[in-house]
Amino acid sequence: MRILGIDPGLQTTGFGVIDVQGQQLDYVASGTIRTTKLALGDLPGRLKVLFEGITEVVARYEPDTAAVEIVFVNVNPQSTLLLGQARGACITALVARDLPVAEYTALQMKKAVVGHGRAAKSQVQEMVRRLLQLPGLPGTDAADALGLAITHAHAGAAMARLGSSTTLQRRQHAMFKAGRSY
Amino acid sequence: MRILGIDPGLQTTGFGVIDVQGQQLDYVASGTIRTTKLALGDLPGRLKVLFEGITEVVARYEPDTAAVEIVFVNVNPQSTLLLGQARGACITALVARDLPVAEYTALQMKKAVVGHGRAAKSQVQEMVRRLLQLPGLPGTDAADALGLAITHAHAGAAMARLGSSTTLQRRQHAMFKAGRSY
Repeated sequence: MRILGIDPGLQTTGFGVIDVQGQQLDYVASGTIRTTKLALGDLPGRLKVLFEGITEVVARYEPDTAAVEIVFVNVNPQSTLLLGQARGACITALVARDLPVAEYTALQMKKAVVGHGRAAKSQVQEMVRRLLQLPGLPGTDAADALGLAITHAHAGAAMARLGSSTTLQRRQHAMFKAGRSY
Repeated sequence: MRILGIDPGLQTTGFGVIDVQGQQLDYVASGTIRTTKLALGDLPGRLKVLFEGITEVVARYEPDTAAVEIVFVNVNPQSTLLLGQARGACITALVARDLPVAEYTALQMKKAVVGHGRAAKSQVQEMVRRLLQLPGLPGTDAADALGLAITHAHAGAAMARLGSSTTLQRRQHAMFKAGRSY
C-alpha cells in the first residue's frame, strides 16, 4: 500500500510518500509545496498553488490513501482561519481524486514515530531518517509529512492484527474519529 | 459578464448567478449546496460535496468571474477552523477552473445591496428580489450569494467609470485587498 502524508500550511505544505508491505516501510518521495512567491494577500492564488501541487503529487506517485495532520486553533484567530483555508484546499485536492483521507494530530504522529508526544522537530526528523533509512535528514515539513504516513502505516498494521478486514475498517474509522479534534 | 456569488458554509453554501450588461442585472440561477446528509465528523466528505457542488455549478452556468464572502473569526475557534476549511474548499473549486475570485465582507455586500451595513437578512432577501425582479423571496443563503454577485457588478461598474481598463484592474485589485480581513 502506498501512503501520502500531508502537513498542511498556507506558506509551506509538506508531503511524504511511503510504500508499506507488512512491517516493511520504503521511502518513495517527499518535499514541500511553497506559496511564498505569491503576495501575502493573494489567498485564492495560494490555495490554487496548494491544490495544483497536491494534485500533481497524487498524479505522479499514485498513492492508495492519504493521512493529513489535524491542525489546531492558533492564539491568533486570523491565523486559524488562514490555516483552515489552506487545510481545506489540501484535503479538497485529495478527495477530488477519490483518495480516502485519515487524520492524525501532531501528538499522535510524534507518539507513533518517536515514542512520546513531546518530541522536538529534530527528533521527528532523526527517527523518520532511521525508519526509512534515508541518507540524510529530511526537512522539517517533509519529515512531519513522512511521519504522518508512517503513523497511518502503524495504525493500519495495529488494526490488521485485531481482526477481519470488515472489523478493521470499522475500528479504523472509530480510531480516526477519536483522533479528530473537531 | 456572468458573475457567480458564493456564501461559504460547512453545512450550507449558497450560490447565485447573475448576468450583467451595463446597468442591467439579470437573474440566472441560485441555490444551496448542503452537506447535512453526511456525519458531522466527516470533514473530508463534506469538503468533497462542496468542491463537487461548486464545480458542477461552474460547469453548468459558465460564469466569467466569482465573488466570495469573506468570513470572520467566530467566538468559537473550532467553528472558525471548520468554516475556514469550508471556504478553502469553495475557493479551490473556483481557482481550479481558473475563475478570478473577488472577496467582499458581509458589510460591503449589505452596503451595496441595501444601502447600509446593519441590514437584516430579510432586508437583503427583499432587495435582492427587487433588484433581480424575482417572483418570490430567495432563501437567505442564496440571497447572500446573489447579493455578493450584485456587489461585484456594482464594484466593476464603479471602477469602469473611473478610468481605463488597466487602471481599473489595478484599482479594483487595491479595492479587493482593502476589503480583505486577513
